[in-house]
Amino acid sequence: MPKASESRQVRLTPSAYAYPLLIKQLLHTPLATCPEQEIVYRDQTRHNYWTFRHRIGQLASGLLEIDVGPGDTVAVMDWDSHRYLECYFAVPMTGAVLMTANVRLSPEQLAYTLNHSGARALLINADFLPMLAEMRDKLEHIDRFVLLDDTGSTAVPDDFVDEYENLLARSSPDFAFPDFDENTVATTFYTTGTTGLPKGVCFSHRQIVLHTLAETAALTSAPRQGRIHRDDVYMPMTPMFHVHAWGMPYVATMLGLKQVYPGRYAPDSLLELMMRERVTFSHGVPTLLQMVLSCPAAAAADLRGWKVVVGGSALPRVLAQTALERGIDVFTGYGMSETGPILTLAQVKTATPADTSHELDMRTRTGLPVPLVELRIVDEQMHDVAHDGKTSGEIVARAPWLTYGYVGDPAASERLWAGGYLHTNDIGVIDSQGYLQITDRLKDVIKSGGEWVSSFELEDLISQHPAVAEVAVVCVKDAKWGERPLPLIVLKAGEFADEQSIQKHLKEYAIRGVISQYAVPERVVFVDAIDKTSVGKVDKKLLRAKYQTAG
Amino acid sequence: MPKASESRQVRLTPSAYAYPLLIKQLLHTPLATCPEQEIVYRDQTRHNYWTFRHRIGQLASGLLEIDVGPGDTVAVMDWDSHRYLECYFAVPMTGAVLMTANVRLSPEQLAYTLNHSGARALLINADFLPMLAEMRDKLEHIDRFVLLDDTGSTAVPDDFVDEYENLLARSSPDFAFPDFDENTVATTFYTTGTTGLPKGVCFSHRQIVLHTLAETAALTSAPRQGRIHRDDVYMPMTPMFHVHAWGMPYVATMLGLKQVYPGRYAPDSLLELMMRERVTFSHGVPTLLQMVLSCPAAAAADLRGWKVVVGGSALPRVLAQTALERGIDVFTGYGMSETGPILTLAQVKTATPADTSHELDMRTRTGLPVPLVELRIVDEQMHDVAHDGKTSGEIVARAPWLTYGYVGDPAASERLWAGGYLHTNDIGVIDSQGYLQITDRLKDVIKSGGEWVSSFELEDLISQHPAVAEVAVVCVKDAKWGERPLPLIVLKAGEFADEQSIQKHLKEYAIRGVISQYAVPERVVFVDAIDKTSVGKVDKKLLRAKYQTAG
Repeated sequence: MPKASESRQVRLTPSAYAYPLLIKQLLHTPLATCPEQEIVYRDQTRHNYWTFRHRIGQLASGLLEIDVGPGDTVAVMDWDSHRYLECYFAVPMTGAVLMTANVRLSPEQLAYTLNHSGARALLINADFLPMLAEMRDKLEHIDRFVLLDDTGSTAVPDDFVDEYENLLARSSPDFAFPDFDENTVATTFYTTGTTGLPKGVCFSHRQIVLHTLAETAALTSAPRQGRIHRDDVYMPMTPMFHVHAWGMPYVATMLGLKQVYPGRYAPDSLLELMMRERVTFSHGVPTLLQMVLSCPAAAAADLRGWKVVVGGSALPRVLAQTALERGIDVFTGYGMSETGPILTLAQVKTATPADTSHELDMRTRTGLPVPLVELRIVDEQMHDVAHDGKTSGEIVARAPWLTYGYVGDPAASERLWAGGYLHTNDIGVIDSQGYLQITDRLKDVIKSGGEWVSSFELEDLISQHPAVAEVAVVCVKDAKWGERPLPLIVLKAGEFADEQSIQKHLKEYAIRGVISQYAVPERVVFVDAIDKTSVGKVDKKLLRAKYQTAG
Repeated sequence: MPKASESRQVRLTPSAYAYPLLIKQLLHTPLATCPEQEIVYRDQTRHNYWTFRHRIGQLASGLLEIDVGPGDTVAVMDWDSHRYLECYFAVPMTGAVLMTANVRLSPEQLAYTLNHSGARALLINADFLPMLAEMRDKLEHIDRFVLLDDTGSTAVPDDFVDEYENLLARSSPDFAFPDFDENTVATTFYTTGTTGLPKGVCFSHRQIVLHTLAETAALTSAPRQGRIHRDDVYMPMTPMFHVHAWGMPYVATMLGLKQVYPGRYAPDSLLELMMRERVTFSHGVPTLLQMVLSCPAAAAADLRGWKVVVGGSALPRVLAQTALERGIDVFTGYGMSETGPILTLAQVKTATPADTSHELDMRTRTGLPVPLVELRIVDEQMHDVAHDGKTSGEIVARAPWLTYGYVGDPAASERLWAGGYLHTNDIGVIDSQGYLQITDRLKDVIKSGGEWVSSFELEDLISQHPAVAEVAVVCVKDAKWGERPLPLIVLKAGEFADEQSIQKHLKEYAIRGVISQYAVPERVVFVDAIDKTSVGKVDKKLLRAKYQTAG
């Protein structure tokens, strides 16, 4: 087929009039149109967008004053707060890199990610000081600590440079945020997806701005369901360390929404805050939505009109139904750390008949691609498979906000982008209506409460137990956590081990920070043999099916 | 104030995984999610998005087959049609430049723009063949003519390479649209704004994609008014040669809307088509909306829920009120050829009280900046003036889709971008709510029925009349055309001229194509003296005020 050559094309010369896509540009509209809109943190502070912009300037000035600026990496360990939102803007706007540290990792893993990111500064909530003490001697590059304190009474440790509010108070709000190359790295964080060591991904200003625009276009243009608009009140239920809270704080800020930051995720206080501030738009893992709906105060709460995007793991049909019955506008979003994250949203299409069962189908599917996303399902030769709702293939994608790869791991990056498309390692089908549905996972990782558990890693550790001959860890569905790991174990002849002994074995690794506490399985099944495929590989597909109910 | 240095920043290396912002990328979502959505042309053809994509491939193949490809400029002279939409995509997607020829110009001006653009190919509707005959000997570069024919019965002229449908029918739909530099020029067209000679502006793929995303975000996120969504049916009432019909066909395509193209703009047939196809979203100049509302069939038509963005000139309050009373969701959009075009939309904000008069105020204002637009009103030293609804300044802007300048006119481009912001030459105020309101124009141009009339040019020509001693052309408001030029003339002592003699004088220039027919004023006022400012300049501000009612 014909293909045009590029040789004769006319290009615009990069010019002084060019406008780089920078995070600071997202602030123009809200500051011009609704500067008095509120940004709320728990019951503690209420700022408006003018104050927010003022504090962004102060934070940038303050960081520069303690010699943290362009090219430096600034790590944050905080609950979801207005401070975190300020860091989302101020840190990259100076040309520095924001590192959103995963506070759910073990101290050992967390120290590894902080070191690997090259972070020089750490802004840390007083609640995490014990964790810092555990990893302090392992930290290689950080020499600037700033305390974040909700109580106002925590003593600033001697070797900290300052407390956050003090730093702001003594710094100028007038900071001339410069234009610079839009490919400058804005953020970095670590995914614990596929192997023992977390992998770093990073995103440029350009990528974040484009993700914001495309996510906005998809969320706001839905014909009815999940249609976000400027009267909405936003509250995240996905931690801000996790893929920029799905990019939603950037969307909410660009649209000038009232924003509510809840701190920690205690279901009853989330619900209370939500009712008080009249929250209408949230997102989170199914586990958390389930917890909020199950807490005692939920029974009497009017939840009608609450729009909730559910992601991180599949939205269970029964949870979707419960939510719909409460008048909650719930639907699935899909993506991953590497994809920045949004690839699809399970928005109901105009042509859908108003039939409850069909509607549940739509809302619980993986979704429709958002603008600019080129989504394919392909066979091993990267040929597209049929969109018939039956033929499955690996989900691969291109979009202007996907990570270019893993920091310092060119081999893994090349695998991620084999054939010029980002490989999700998820297996799915696309139906005739264009809906993607994930059916399987290429690699056997388990997503529990929104966090990855590696079955390979667990297998590796369990196999080190003296009594274990063979082990396969399969993923089983769990009402509370979405998925949990279930080890199937064949004991060595003449040896003995029970469930508790296996758990004790794994807990020792968890104490040492090799794995997270939540990776330790509640249940273990002892079997005589492990099912294999015709080529002798462990048949995980069969095992998953077999132990889904029996386990 | 502190300013961060760029030296230490971390940049992503341009990579094989980079995703250029190209017009072809706008097609991913509609093709994946709603390929059966319709694209309608009058009562003649109904395609769906699959056919549309198929025909884009055929058009690109057909153009390449007649040796028109990357780097070539392809001009189009057509009414608003599905063919024009195909050209919006196919031409730039091959790496060629789409030149949207202004068919309302005089043949002389049109030939000038075609020559200046370097167009090699012209796709021309049979209705414009007489105009082509008039300018044919002046065309310098075009050697490929393709006929667009609605009747199917027009003989293809001997020196034409083909007829459009024939070209498509014999061409392959399989065209591998390549990735290329997003700064490649996609479109060019000519603005007749400020001086006698039209000026060329051009836009890159990147600029068009970013305009599409930001315009979508603004249109879809409104809390109530003008909220566009995927159930809308789109029909333009701004010609497609005019700044990409305000970029709306790109927005409509990316969102997968049903699209209706009306051909010529006869008010009664527009209305009939609109009713038949259940159009819910349009945009156009106030004159055309007025004509549609005034045509006989409008009285009985149900126009409720029709969303109409009005631009090109100010939305008269009385027209807005009439439209609102008919249930039409009408509001202002602002921009210009140089700004690609959208800068602001007069969307009603959430906080606005539901008071009719106040609501009319909001809807008829110039508007609120759309996302990513940095809008300022400045004094002559480029200092911001107060946003108090009283202090006026020149409106200047930055946004990622503004033209870099005028083709082949670096001096004018530098003036356009003086101080690093694009100068609109409009004077305005911004109120405490953030609404922009244009109050005046820096240069004395007149916008009549959506087209510019240059007062300087008219003054120049009238002053060439033997009886004229002095002339000032002022802009007066007009119920039908928005604005019209009104010449104030001082006759030479002892000489005589009447209105008709001045009009006859100007009509000779119009016949020769120096000015457009619509630039000839209906009325002329003879005065004893022309008011001057203290420094001896013609006081246009005073004159406009004086003749607004008296004229």
